[in-house]
Order: sequence, then C-alpha cells, then structure tokens
Amino acid sequence: MNKPQITIKDIARALNVSPSTVSRALKNNPDISQETRTLVQNYAREHNYKPNELAVNLRVSRSNTIGVIVPQLVHHFFSCVLSGIEKTAAEAGYNIIVAQSNESYEQEVKIAQSFLAARVCGVIASLAKNTSRYDHYQELLNNGIPIVFYDRICTGLKTERVVVDDYAGSFAAVEYMIQTGCKRIFFYGAAPHLEITKNRRNGYLDALKKYKIPVDESMMLLCDTRERAIAITPDLLESENRPDGFFAINDETAAGILYACKLVGVKVPDEVSICGFTDGAIAQSTDPKLTTVEQHGEEVGKSAFSILIEKLEGDGEKSCNKIVKTNLVVRGTTK
Amino acid sequence: MNKPQITIKDIARALNVSPSTVSRALKNNPDISQETRTLVQNYAREHNYKPNELAVNLRVSRSNTIGVIVPQLVHHFFSCVLSGIEKTAAEAGYNIIVAQSNESYEQEVKIAQSFLAARVCGVIASLAKNTSRYDHYQELLNNGIPIVFYDRICTGLKTERVVVDDYAGSFAAVEYMIQTGCKRIFFYGAAPHLEITKNRRNGYLDALKKYKIPVDESMMLLCDTRERAIAITPDLLESENRPDGFFAINDETAAGILYACKLVGVKVPDEVSICGFTDGAIAQSTDPKLTTVEQHGEEVGKSAFSILIEKLEGDGEKSCNKIVKTNLVVRGTTK
Repeated sequence: MNKPQITIKDIARALNVSPSTVSRALKNNPDISQETRTLVQNYAREHNYKPNELAVNLRVSRSNTIGVIVPQLVHHFFSCVLSGIEKTAAEAGYNIIVAQSNESYEQEVKIAQSFLAARVCGVIASLAKNTSRYDHYQELLNNGIPIVFYDRICTGLKTERVVVDDYAGSFAAVEYMIQTGCKRIFFYGAAPHLEITKNRRNGYLDALKKYKIPVDESMMLLCDTRERAIAITPDLLESENRPDGFFAINDETAAGILYACKLVGVKVPDEVSICGFTDGAIAQSTDPKLTTVEQHGEEVGKSAFSILIEKLEGDGEKSCNKIVKTNLVVRGTTK
Repeated sequence: MNKPQITIKDIARALNVSPSTVSRALKNNPDISQETRTLVQNYAREHNYKPNELAVNLRVSRSNTIGVIVPQLVHHFFSCVLSGIEKTAAEAGYNIIVAQSNESYEQEVKIAQSFLAARVCGVIASLAKNTSRYDHYQELLNNGIPIVFYDRICTGLKTERVVVDDYAGSFAAVEYMIQTGCKRIFFYGAAPHLEITKNRRNGYLDALKKYKIPVDESMMLLCDTRERAIAITPDLLESENRPDGFFAINDETAAGILYACKLVGVKVPDEVSICGFTDGAIAQSTDPKLTTVEQHGEEVGKSAFSILIEKLEGDGEKSCNKIVKTNLVVRGTTK
C-alpha cells in the first residue's frame, strides 16, 4: 500500500508553524526566516512532499485565459485582429481560447456558455451578422466576466469597444471618388442593422451631401460578397443611368465588381471607379490593384486586448470606446 | 460571521458513510442505494452544501483544452486549418488555445512551455520555418501530452501527422504544364529543409524525369514571397534561356510572378505558364485567375483534431500518418 502524500497542513503540524508559513517557506519567500525556510524545506524533502499540482494549474488556467469570438476565421480582417490579440496576449502571459460563430447567433450563444463554463477571465468578441439579441453577453457580464467588443460591436450593452473609423474611412473614399469626377456612386453594404453598415453608409451620405449630390435610395444595395457583386452588377452597368463609381463594404465585393466590369467590357477606372474596404491580400492581387480603405486589423486586436487587461488588472472603472483610424489607399481602380 | 461551508467530509462524518459515497450520492450515481442517495441529498440541502466549483472547473479546463500552434494567423491556408480544428473541437466539446510562433523557433519553444504549464490535454502544431530542433516537443511528449503535427511536420519525433499530398499535387501540376507545352519550368520553393519543399520538389523532379526533361539545378530557386518573386523574376524573363513556366510553392509567389511578367511585357499564358499552390482568395483575384493546386486546409484541420481525439479518448495505440489529397485547379495562367 502507498503511504498517503503529506500535505502542507501535516508539515505545519509537525513543525508547529502555520500552514501559510510552510507554504511561503516552500516558495523560498524572504519574509520567512532562513532558519525556518531550511527547516521546512528539509522536512518536505525527507517526507517526499509534492505540491498539489492541480491547485497550481487551477490558478494558471483561471487567471490567464481570455475567450475570443471570431465570426469567421478564414477572413483577412479577422485574421489580422486575432493575430493582434494573440501577440499582445502572449507578451502579457495570457492564453487565448478561440471560437468562431460562423456568423450564427445560435453558435455564438453556445460559445458564450462554454466560455462561462471554462471560467475565462475576459472575453473579446465581434457579433455574428444575424445577432440582434444580447442575453448571452449579459449573462457573462452578470458573472463578472468583462467583454470588449471589436468591429461589429453591441450598442445595447455597456461594455468596452474597439471600432475602426468606418465613418471617416468611407467619407474619405467617397469624397475622393467625387473629386476625381464620379457623380453616380453606388454603395454596396452589408446587413443594414450592423453598425459597420450604418457608419459606412453615413460617411457615404455625408460625402454626397457635402458636394450637393442628391441621394438616391436605389443606389444603396445589400451586397457584401464577390458572388453577389458578380450577379447584380452587369445589369446596372447596362442600365440607362449607369453607375460611374462603386463604394463596396469589403475588398471581396470590390473585386467582384471589377470582375463584372470586365465581363461586360466596361473600363476601370476610365468609365467606372471602384473602391473597397479592408486592404487585404485581394487588394494587391487584382488587375488593376484595388483602391481601398485600409483597416488596421492587427491594431484593433492589440487595442482590444490592452483595454481588456486594463479592465482586469487596472482599476477597471473608466469605460472605453476606442476608434482605430483608417486610411485611403489609392491604387488602380480609381482615377 | 458567516458559518463555514460544509464539505463532503462533514456530510460523510455526520451520516457515518465514506466521502466517496457522499460524492457519488450527490451525483445521483445508481451504484449507491436510493435510500442513501436520498439521505445524503436531503442532508446536503438542509445544510446548504455547495459543490466546490473550483474543483469542477479544474476538471473542465484540464480535460478539454487543446493547444494549437500556428506559424502565422494571417495566412489563408493556416486560417483554413484553424477553422477546421475549431469546428470539430466545438462539436466535440473541446476548447482550443491558439498561439502563433510568427515563424520563430524561440517563440515556438515558449509556446510549448506555456502549453505544458497550462496543462493542455493535447497539442496540434505546425513548425516554424526555422525550427530544426525538437526538444520542446519531446518535453511535451515526456509529460504525456500527445502531439499531432500538420503540414510542416517533424520527422524526427514519433508522433501523429497530417500532411497535404504535396508530392502528388506538385507532380500533377508540373505534368500538366509539360503536357501543355512547357519545356523550361522553374521551381520556386521555400527553405530546403522543410518537408513541404522536399516533397514538392520531388514531385517536380519526377514529373520532369517522366517526360525525359533534363534537370537544371539553377532552375530551382529559394523564393516563397510575392516581393521576392517580383524582385528576381524580371531578370530571368529577359535572360537568354528564359523560362516558359513557373511552379511556385504558394499563390502569393505565383501572383508575384504574374505581376513581374506584366511588368516586362511577357504574356501569360501565351509565353509563360504559372501555377501556384494553395487556392486561396488571391487565386481568384488575379487577372487571369491562377492555375493552382488546391490544398484542403479545413480538411487538414479536421483530420488533425480527429486523430488527436482518437489518441486521447480511444485506445491511442496505433500511430497515424494521414495524407489529405490535393487537386489541380486549371484556370487562366496555364494553357
């Protein structure tokens, strides 16, 4: 039969000191006299004391793991954000648990529950496209788990946020197109309830307004994928009042518009200007290369992590709404 | 003053049964008589017993977290692999901790140590480009943590592996280029010690051999980025014995070659054929679109997770070397 393992309490009893003294002596804490440290350490060695590894691990896993919710992992901007979070987390000694919602509200709810069960110390999240209820996030907050939203934020909850400057980015892009001669610029956006759609559309509208170009609702369409752009653009290009510019909510969609222009023989940028949003690998690969609004995804991730850590390790009182600047990168799809 | 929480031991003492009986009775385990279960459960309720949540979480966090090492998160293939791992892990109720080595051996060593400290139950990893020592992985294995390598595998350790069929993919690509008229095909590869470079070069060499095309060492170059391809390709295209084909180790490099051809006015595919490897977003965005070898990254990730789970939950005896098929996607950069 194995002898039972001796514990810190056993050592304390045998040497007539307190358990906390034993614990600190074993860690060679200088608050404890050298004499006592030697006494405790020798006794522990002789009696083959082993620290309770489970308890040690428990502390590790509870205190330094952050849950990250990503709508899609195979996506340039989100990869950049995740990379930014991972880099700052690694430097700060935190682990990140990564889960993707696959743009599904139901999946997002499951992830939030699993993060709660895993006792992550904080969450960094971006909403799925169809998420419009937030109880699952409220539940995390109720359990004392702080949340920082990034990009697709939740305005219904009082949490920290990091967004890219969608409004200014889109205003600058549309202003540039107007200044280079465009008069009929279409806006291809994502789901209208998303903050990114609202802010980018507002930038578009305000740029039109500044240059006294009348707004036409029929020129603002729901189109946020390459496939959809290829499907709907040719008819527009062959209509009577055809567009002379497109501002698209992402590069994928802008690349689809470019493809559609080639299909019907419309010259870019001579007859039509195109501007995307993201500046990922796609923007450098098209011919001509895309004019686009550069989103600093890695910067978004780094900020989100820093804000969360401030919340966890700092006083955590002040709330924060960080805006990461964008900038317009002019390439070959605009004049 | 708060009354101290009662423990399982207190209940056991009060009811004169063993602590393990109490524990099982509280979980309603049918091994314990209904009478004893009722007795224990009533006593626990009356005395406001609360299970030790920390211990419960500990079990959760120890038993269901997998560590994943990714060389670069902002990379189409690795994003796909990660997505595949995440999806299968979520279905199986596992969390994944994600860390990126940023192609650094030193960072990889730190990650392995942190995974050990966090007591992950298994690791899925792909080597950094400059990793050629494996002690940090051996240390994980010594601690009973199984490892599945993917893509950039480690042949020096006895572990499970998932690779894409680099050899067959590259053989098929080069054979196709030869069959459509190419006689001087250059190979642009990554670091020569990497298994993916070796296997893809072997596929290239065997295809040349099959068609009795002499091998020329000066036609196999180290070039695995867009920038490097743009830097070195124009001179080759203007040399006397200029290439009539390029087989590149990734799409990024192939897109760089295409760009270089346009720079010097060489027509693709009329004068030069180009084939990449990956089939990510870039391949669809170039003009013409890239002929490339499709790597099923998500499939690689799903397989890696399944093999790890088999190791963790199954008998775990048989070792496994899974090869995920590739296929050639012919588009506009080849005849």
